[in-house]
Amino acid sequence: MRVLNASVDPAMRGWLSAEKNYLTVPDGEVMKAHGVGEVIASECAAYNVGDVVFGWLGWQRFAAISEKDALWKVDLSLAPPEAWLSIFGLNGLTAWIGFTHLARPVAGETVLVTTAAGGVGGVVGQLAAAAGLTAIGLTGGADKVARAEATLGYSKAIDYRADGLDAALAEAVPKGVDIFFDNTAGALADAVFRHLNIRARVIQCGTASVSSWLPPPTGPRRERDMLVKRLAWQGFVAFDYTREFPQALADLQGLYRAGQLTAQDEVLEGLAHAPGAIARLYRGENTGRLTIRP
Amino acid sequence: MRVLNASVDPAMRGWLSAEKNYLTVPDGEVMKAHGVGEVIASECAAYNVGDVVFGWLGWQRFAAISEKDALWKVDLSLAPPEAWLSIFGLNGLTAWIGFTHLARPVAGETVLVTTAAGGVGGVVGQLAAAAGLTAIGLTGGADKVARAEATLGYSKAIDYRADGLDAALAEAVPKGVDIFFDNTAGALADAVFRHLNIRARVIQCGTASVSSWLPPPTGPRRERDMLVKRLAWQGFVAFDYTREFPQALADLQGLYRAGQLTAQDEVLEGLAHAPGAIARLYRGENTGRLTIRP
Repeated sequence: MRVLNASVDPAMRGWLSAEKNYLTVPDGEVMKAHGVGEVIASECAAYNVGDVVFGWLGWQRFAAISEKDALWKVDLSLAPPEAWLSIFGLNGLTAWIGFTHLARPVAGETVLVTTAAGGVGGVVGQLAAAAGLTAIGLTGGADKVARAEATLGYSKAIDYRADGLDAALAEAVPKGVDIFFDNTAGALADAVFRHLNIRARVIQCGTASVSSWLPPPTGPRRERDMLVKRLAWQGFVAFDYTREFPQALADLQGLYRAGQLTAQDEVLEGLAHAPGAIARLYRGENTGRLTIRP
Repeated sequence: MRVLNASVDPAMRGWLSAEKNYLTVPDGEVMKAHGVGEVIASECAAYNVGDVVFGWLGWQRFAAISEKDALWKVDLSLAPPEAWLSIFGLNGLTAWIGFTHLARPVAGETVLVTTAAGGVGGVVGQLAAAAGLTAIGLTGGADKVARAEATLGYSKAIDYRADGLDAALAEAVPKGVDIFFDNTAGALADAVFRHLNIRARVIQCGTASVSSWLPPPTGPRRERDMLVKRLAWQGFVAFDYTREFPQALADLQGLYRAGQLTAQDEVLEGLAHAPGAIARLYRGENTGRLTIRP
């Protein structure tokens, strides 16, 4: 495969760490990464030269992969390679699984999303708006606030770095929060928990605001909220729901064609950007879903 | 109604407190309590003099109640009044809703229960054993350990007050914990969380080890475990599941008739015991489900 685009994900930091994780990348191995590539030679009946494929290609210019790592074919006439790594890739699938499949959204409810302008959060906002929910976002910086409100489905986005987060949050969710789609954990999650409604669903999709969990940092205990508010808190990893992926992709592509889903992609040129790109994600400097054209 | 037995519940402390709760009892009102009573006068077509009824009777010798507070009729030929407040009352229903209905138990799994010898925990252990799971209990004191293992369905019970809790727990759950039925919160819950398996279900049924939640005490953050282990953590209050009660009661009575469910009731004589009875629960001195014969 000639790799057209390779993904940069916050989760990669965890894959490199010694901490227990669902996926690891030992020292000396190619970084695991989703990518979009063109088949340039094939010994596999399912894929022919010229096919464009989404799969586990890694951070490299050429990838020799087996059939199990080729996940599905990609139609570049619908959208460019980077879109197949963002709204039609793991970001879009993660947003759909967590929000549409697990959080059981109901029109009229309020969903609050952390890292609202990120690759996953940006899709959750648009899925929520399309489903008739009110989406409120937390994100860092005036540019991301503006982008979240202008193009990502959010009725209101709040800059968590500004003063008065609690007051801004209280004003933004007068009826409370029915679904909390959390990508950050930590103090931001604590602020949102105070606004959860009875029977709210909490979807744990990431923990980006906490850099080390060895040992876990402390925070306010949740047990009482879990009980009194009858909360349902679900952690998930999209890979566990491959059975749902065809439905997810069909939904996402339908919304894209209908103009209800836009991509926000930022493409870096050259693999030399790769290590710095992860750091960039954690500093919040990216302006869209980061991929590398190797 | 002449009240035959009235319930004493740990939750009553919360109902009396100023903290936000699902149910409150303001100063000067009769303590809300489930009870079993005999109808001595009736202006209601559904209940006749002589019927024995389970319902919201309160801590009092005679109760004048409306039809909505009379929950269902009771058959004293199957079991004595106190059993209708324990295994066929809120304890049994709570155990059934949390374990059988919400935790989706699978034969061969391991369930860990805190306050294993309590009114709810004692039923969970027996439901788990009847369903082919391995039940491991945490409880306080050698007497309760012995009772949990002898009559309440537990393969192994651990005295959480003894030294070496972590080692005892590790030895008791070599394959990890698939369902954590938690009645205590706090440090005991922290110890159990370290043993949760991937896709474990956590059922938050009570928070008895923490006496005040204003403000919430701190503990290790759960977000990372929620994500990496794909946990599902569900708080619940049995009252929310009244639609399931007929099925729950039918199951519990079937197990009782089959000899797979025993009651463990401790009946106090006289309402004068009432306030001290709640304190007694929190000190762990009760030897079974506490009720008062007013």
